[in-house]
Amino acid sequence: MSNSIEVSGSPGVSRLRISDLTVFIARVFESLGFPVGDADRAAFLMAEADAWGADAHGVFRLPMYVKRVQNGGINPRPKMRIVHEQPATALLDGDNAMGHLCMSRAAEIAIEKARTLGAAWVGVRNSNHAGAGSLYARMPLPHDMIGLYAAVGGANLLPPWGGTEKLLSTNPLAIAVPGSKRPAIVLDMATTNASFGKIKVKAQRGEPMPEGWMIDREGNPLTDPQKALEGFLLPIGGAKGYGLALMIGLLGGILNGATFGKSAIDFSTDHSTITNTGQLLIAVNIAAFADVQEFKAGVDEIWDQMKSSPKLPGVDEVRLPGERSAKIYEDRKRNGLPLSPELRRVLDELADNLQVPRL
Amino acid sequence: MSNSIEVSGSPGVSRLRISDLTVFIARVFESLGFPVGDADRAAFLMAEADAWGADAHGVFRLPMYVKRVQNGGINPRPKMRIVHEQPATALLDGDNAMGHLCMSRAAEIAIEKARTLGAAWVGVRNSNHAGAGSLYARMPLPHDMIGLYAAVGGANLLPPWGGTEKLLSTNPLAIAVPGSKRPAIVLDMATTNASFGKIKVKAQRGEPMPEGWMIDREGNPLTDPQKALEGFLLPIGGAKGYGLALMIGLLGGILNGATFGKSAIDFSTDHSTITNTGQLLIAVNIAAFADVQEFKAGVDEIWDQMKSSPKLPGVDEVRLPGERSAKIYEDRKRNGLPLSPELRRVLDELADNLQVPRL
Repeated sequence: MSNSIEVSGSPGVSRLRISDLTVFIARVFESLGFPVGDADRAAFLMAEADAWGADAHGVFRLPMYVKRVQNGGINPRPKMRIVHEQPATALLDGDNAMGHLCMSRAAEIAIEKARTLGAAWVGVRNSNHAGAGSLYARMPLPHDMIGLYAAVGGANLLPPWGGTEKLLSTNPLAIAVPGSKRPAIVLDMATTNASFGKIKVKAQRGEPMPEGWMIDREGNPLTDPQKALEGFLLPIGGAKGYGLALMIGLLGGILNGATFGKSAIDFSTDHSTITNTGQLLIAVNIAAFADVQEFKAGVDEIWDQMKSSPKLPGVDEVRLPGERSAKIYEDRKRNGLPLSPELRRVLDELADNLQVPRL
Repeated sequence: MSNSIEVSGSPGVSRLRISDLTVFIARVFESLGFPVGDADRAAFLMAEADAWGADAHGVFRLPMYVKRVQNGGINPRPKMRIVHEQPATALLDGDNAMGHLCMSRAAEIAIEKARTLGAAWVGVRNSNHAGAGSLYARMPLPHDMIGLYAAVGGANLLPPWGGTEKLLSTNPLAIAVPGSKRPAIVLDMATTNASFGKIKVKAQRGEPMPEGWMIDREGNPLTDPQKALEGFLLPIGGAKGYGLALMIGLLGGILNGATFGKSAIDFSTDHSTITNTGQLLIAVNIAAFADVQEFKAGVDEIWDQMKSSPKLPGVDEVRLPGERSAKIYEDRKRNGLPLSPELRRVLDELADNLQVPRL
C-alpha cells in the first residue's frame, strides 16, 4: 500500500492519489495492447469519474473492461472515423473502442464545430460504455460552451410502462452549464429512479436497495441487489421516464445506427459480443446567444436563489446538481480517493494477472 | 349550437368541428387587433392542440390569452426579430407576441438551418405561453427531421428539491421522432408529476387531484386543485426532475435572456406584466445521420417491440408516447372536439363581450 494513506475512522479504507490511480489504469490498458495515448486518455477519464465521486463509473469498472478487451468485446487498437458529416453534425464510428475514447473524440468534434457554427450535434456508434456522462457534458465548459450528453445503456432492465419485457436501459442524460464564481451546474441522471451502476455498488457492498428502485415480476418491491436481473427498474415519473428512456434510445441508438431495444447486449454478463453502443453529444456556444460573462453571472444568480430557499422540515441543505460532486472533486484531488479493501483486493488480483505493478 | 352535434351518452357535451373552432378563435384574435395572418396562425395552433387531445392547452386557454392582450400582457401587433445569429443557431426576440407565433417562427428558422447544416438550435425570448409543446416538436417531422422543444413555465409552483420557495415551473420538454407505417413517437411531458394545465382542468371540472401531484407546506399530500397556489408540485424522480426543470430554465431562460427563477410572472393571475417567456427548439435532419427510410423503419420496429411486450397484471395496453394523441387526433379531426357545456358557456360569454359570432 505504498501509494496510500489510511483514512482515520474507516479501518481498512485508504486514500489513493488520483494521479497514481491514473498511472495504474493506464498500465493495465497498455498491458492489453492499447496505444499509449489511448491508454492514458481512458485512464485519465476513468480516474476523473472517481475524482468526481461517480464511484460506479470509475476504477470499479476496470475488471469488467479488461474482461471485455480480453474476450474481443472491446477493440484495443481502434480506428475511429466520421461516417456522416454535415457542417453542424457528425456521426462518429468508434470501431468498438472504449466508450471513453469515442465520447471524448465526439466532444472534441462538437466543440470545434460549435465554435464557428454556434451549436453542434455529434452522434456515436460502435462505441462502448463510457462511464460517467458528466465527464463528456463537462468537456465544452472550458470553451464557454454548454454540453449535453445522452447514451443508450447496455443492460436492459426497464420494460415499457405497463409491460414486463425488458426492452430499455437506464439511458442516462447529462447536462453541464458553466457558472462564474459558483461551480458549474451539472446534471447527470439516469431516466430510472436508480442507475444500474448504483445497484452494482449496492451488490458489491452487500447492502439492500431502497424501495422504489426496482420491482419484481409481480410488481412488488425488490430490494436484494443480487436479484437485480430478475426484476425491473422503475422509470422516473412512471410513463414519463419510460418516454425519456425511449427517446434517448431513438436519438442515441436508432439515429446513429447503434443498438437499441431487443438487440441490446448486456456487457456485465456478455464479455465478447460487440455492443454497438450509441451516444450523442451536443455543444452549444454561449456567445452565439448571450454575453458570456453576463450569462455566467445569471447562472450564479440562479445558484444563489436555489441555495437560499427555505427548507422543508428535516432537510439539512438545498443542493444544486453537481454541487456534491464539486466538493468531492476538490477533496479527492487534494486528499486522494477512498478505496475499500474489497476493491483494492480485486484490483491487486487484476494487477497480478496482467503482470502490472499493484496500486 | 349550429356548429355542433350532441355526443350520445354525454348529455350536454357537443362535438365541434376543428375547422369551426379555428375560425372562431381567429375571429377573437382579429377582434383584438391581430393582423389576419397572425390571428389565423395562432388560432390554427390552438385548435390543433385541442385536436391532439391537449385539452389544457387549446381553446380552454383562450379567455386567459384575451385578458392578457386586453391588459397589455401580450402584444397583438408584434415585430419579431432575430437578435443573435450563427449558422446553426438563432436567438429570436418575439416582441411579446403570442407564444404560438414565436414558436412556429422559431421552428421555421430551425428547420431551414437544419436542412443545410444537419442540426440547428433556436432560442426564443420575449415570448409567451405557447400551449402544447408537441405542436412545435412535431413541426420538423414533415421535413424528415426530429424536433425537440423545451420551455420555461410561467407559474412557479416547484421549489428546489428539499426547499419550500417556489422558484421553478413545470418546465416542459417535448421530443418528436417520425415513424414510417406507425405514427410519430411524440413525448410531451412536464418535469413535474403533473402539469399546471392538468391541475387547471381538474379545478375547472371540480375534481380532486390524485396524491403525488402536489404537497402542502408541511409536506403532506394536497388534493384540492383550488388550493394549488398554496402548495408545491412534485418533480419526477425527486431530485432528478428538479434538476431537469432547472436545466431547462438555464437553457430556455438564462441563455436566451428570458425570465427564470424569482422574476417569473404567473400569467394565470397577472394579466399585464410582460412575461419574457423563454423557449427553445432544436431540429435534427435525419439525413445527416442515416438513410431516412431505414431510420423510419427502425423507429417502427421499436414501436412494435414496445407494443408486443407482455403486460403487468391489470394493465390493458402498453402505449407509446404520442399513441393516444394520434388516436384522439384522428377522431377529433373526423368527428369534432367534445366541448363541455361549462367551456361553451365561457366561450359564448367571451364571444358576446368581443362582439364576435358565437361558436
